[in-house]
Amino acid sequence: MPTRYRREGPGIEFDRVAFFTDAVFAIAITLLVVEVGLPEVAEGLDRDSAANLLDATRDKLAVIVSFFVGCFAIGGYWLANHRFTARLGSIDPPQIALVVVYLAFVAFLPFAVGTLGEYFSNPLSVVIFAVNLGIVSTLEVLLYWRAGRAGLFEPPIPADVQRWEMLMSASPVAVFALSIPVAFIRPGLGVLTWALSVPLQMVLGRWRPADAAAYE
Amino acid sequence: MPTRYRREGPGIEFDRVAFFTDAVFAIAITLLVVEVGLPEVAEGLDRDSAANLLDATRDKLAVIVSFFVGCFAIGGYWLANHRFTARLGSIDPPQIALVVVYLAFVAFLPFAVGTLGEYFSNPLSVVIFAVNLGIVSTLEVLLYWRAGRAGLFEPPIPADVQRWEMLMSASPVAVFALSIPVAFIRPGLGVLTWALSVPLQMVLGRWRPADAAAYE
Amino acid sequence: MPTRYRREGPGIEFDRVAFFTDAVFAIAITLLVVEVGLPEVAEGLDRDSAANLLDATRDKLAVIVSFFVGCFAIGGYWLANHRFTARLGSIDPPQIALVVVYLAFVAFLPFAVGTLGEYFSNPLSVVIFAVNLGIVSTLEVLLYWRAGRAGLFEPPIPADVQRWEMLMSASPVAVFALSIPVAFIRPGLGVLTWALSVPLQMVLGRWRPADAAAYE
Amino acid sequence: MPTRYRREGPGIEFDRVAFFTDAVFAIAITLLVVEVGLPEVAEGLDRDSAANLLDATRDKLAVIVSFFVGCFAIGGYWLANHRFTARLGSIDPPQIALVVVYLAFVAFLPFAVGTLGEYFSNPLSVVIFAVNLGIVSTLEVLLYWRAGRAGLFEPPIPADVQRWEMLMSASPVAVFALSIPVAFIRPGLGVLTWALSVPLQMVLGRWRPADAAAYE
Repeated sequence: MPTRYRREGPGIEFDRVAFFTDAVFAIAITLLVVEVGLPEVAEGLDRDSAANLLDATRDKLAVIVSFFVGCFAIGGYWLANHRFTARLGSIDPPQIALVVVYLAFVAFLPFAVGTLGEYFSNPLSVVIFAVNLGIVSTLEVLLYWRAGRAGLFEPPIPADVQRWEMLMSASPVAVFALSIPVAFIRPGLGVLTWALSVPLQMVLGRWRPADAAAYE
Repeated sequence: MPTRYRREGPGIEFDRVAFFTDAVFAIAITLLVVEVGLPEVAEGLDRDSAANLLDATRDKLAVIVSFFVGCFAIGGYWLANHRFTARLGSIDPPQIALVVVYLAFVAFLPFAVGTLGEYFSNPLSVVIFAVNLGIVSTLEVLLYWRAGRAGLFEPPIPADVQRWEMLMSASPVAVFALSIPVAFIRPGLGVLTWALSVPLQMVLGRWRPADAAAYE
Repeated sequence: MPTRYRREGPGIEFDRVAFFTDAVFAIAITLLVVEVGLPEVAEGLDRDSAANLLDATRDKLAVIVSFFVGCFAIGGYWLANHRFTARLGSIDPPQIALVVVYLAFVAFLPFAVGTLGEYFSNPLSVVIFAVNLGIVSTLEVLLYWRAGRAGLFEPPIPADVQRWEMLMSASPVAVFALSIPVAFIRPGLGVLTWALSVPLQMVLGRWRPADAAAYE
Repeated sequence: MPTRYRREGPGIEFDRVAFFTDAVFAIAITLLVVEVGLPEVAEGLDRDSAANLLDATRDKLAVIVSFFVGCFAIGGYWLANHRFTARLGSIDPPQIALVVVYLAFVAFLPFAVGTLGEYFSNPLSVVIFAVNLGIVSTLEVLLYWRAGRAGLFEPPIPADVQRWEMLMSASPVAVFALSIPVAFIRPGLGVLTWALSVPLQMVLGRWRPADAAAYE
């Protein structure tokens, strides 16, 4: 009898979508470090001097800040995806196709993060980052909307809870849109604008329907 | 008593092949961004000017388009692999060896995508991409054919459904073959040719055997 | 009836956090090799001569040593994470958010390892590595402390065992702190200092509470 | 009641080791393509000419061949690891620590593959590749030996079958050792020597104990 490895149950198809998503997020978060590169002590200076390496590392400061901004942004989207998938009872091929589109824009994030780090005081780098994350947020809303329409939530989520949760997912888009004109006044201020999404979510949290808690 | 972590069931061997596949696809899709690189404002120009960074980003347009073409191609193959694996009831070592060969050509895709992006108006870059994806499609057909012959499908799939599905898997090869002479007339036209696989699949869809639906 | 892939059970949310963690660690360990680069035979020398390639590889020695130091450090943290997760009976969103912060600093390790390899005789590169790993250790202690406070351990771990295990997790921080002044005397000596964590853990092992074994 | 994600069973600890292994292998196989780089049409030549890009791609031939040699080597080790893990009934921390050491040398493979591609006609690049794979094979034997000694196989494997299987795992080491002097005569011949592992495994297959089949 030749070796045969049998499958255990039907659940692996659902799991694969979640794990493929996790892998793309994990690689996107880890690839950011490749864009950071290594500090470079200028030609002719003593490479063994701590002061020179400190100067070279200081030149990397904007890229390192971008790395952590990027990590927490990607991490935040992963957390949201985790919460979302936890409500699904099943998944179908059109939804998986939408997941792939969503992941393409997640996979593109290291470009936006790298450009932000390299051109920290250029308004356009803020715009590129804001547009990329805005698209990811929009696709997140689309994934949620499609899941509701196709009846993938289990148990089904009431319409008012769905509306409120889509509003929560969409709220960063408004913040990213706002950061674009601000970045043209001052790029650093545009980056700081993104922090507004925290109080915005808190304000929106007040409109949370009474029955939302039961579906978390 | 020393710590021991016990395995739960026999299913992990089957799952590992699926997850190894997912990981290679996820990394291939994410590595594409490394080939994109970062926009480079030319030496001597103001790095903080949005206009200059826009010019530099425009230079990356072909690479960015290739990134998304590559993402959707890889995503499409992953979707096909997902559907295929969903029909398998078990897997054996020769099939796994074939999976490894298939994954080697998936892992090579960032080279083809990067070359396409870097040499967007060169017919040979279109040829390299078409040949690489053509080989992946061919190996997809081989994986399907081998699974049928070795009785890995569960429940078994009737011969006519198998023939039709292999034809569907093989159809992109024809489109890729066609795109090669077209690319020598005009490279961009060769890339557009690939979109023909959508209507072709729709036409082939009409020949779908009546009993195929029961095996999806 | 359209295709639908159903989820099998509720366990996937817990598993996803563990597998996302595994993926970040796996990529961090593998990306180290990207920082190693390839040996470079100097322009004008015979590229086919084994002696020349040996010289070029010798130039990479510090980077290769750093690669393996980094691999074993990352591997050690992964082992600790594996042991820690084995005690958890459940996980909640605030804990997952803390995991994401912890993973951001794991994902940053290739930068520290690469800088150490590139500037092996510079005290600051030792400091960067020590600070990065020190933060990872600190976050490991925080994760443990939070899990205890939130009642995620199952069965619950007695307070004295928790205290001792947090002390074990925190002990590398002391060693990393010690290595910083030592590195300014001699960088290589600073790297060697890290080996002190092995005897330190053995000494701390003597204070292990009698009931600790039951919770491994 | 706050959200809590419960674990489903005890099996995740065993699975995590397998999936961490898969992730490192998957990334190692995919990172090889980063070392390939992109074809470079020489400065001053027409970038849109198919003939020029063909020349530039031809310059990459050795690196591309190395990519596929590396893919199949890594794939072969993954297949062996898959077969090995299929026999384990449980795993313990010392075995996991040994797995981490083994994975460090797997993660190092892109360096060996890249050096082989870059210095295809240099005997030392063949030596580096042979030594790296030789160490991986040796650690594979050690993992097997440790699993047998610690009673991790389930059902237990008889001593004669264990001896034969360790001999099979160790056999590539002999081939790699042989390829080293051959490479100094002619590097390409050294690479071809590796193909000898196929007939060698066939010869050793004749000594397979009669009861080995029952443990596959």
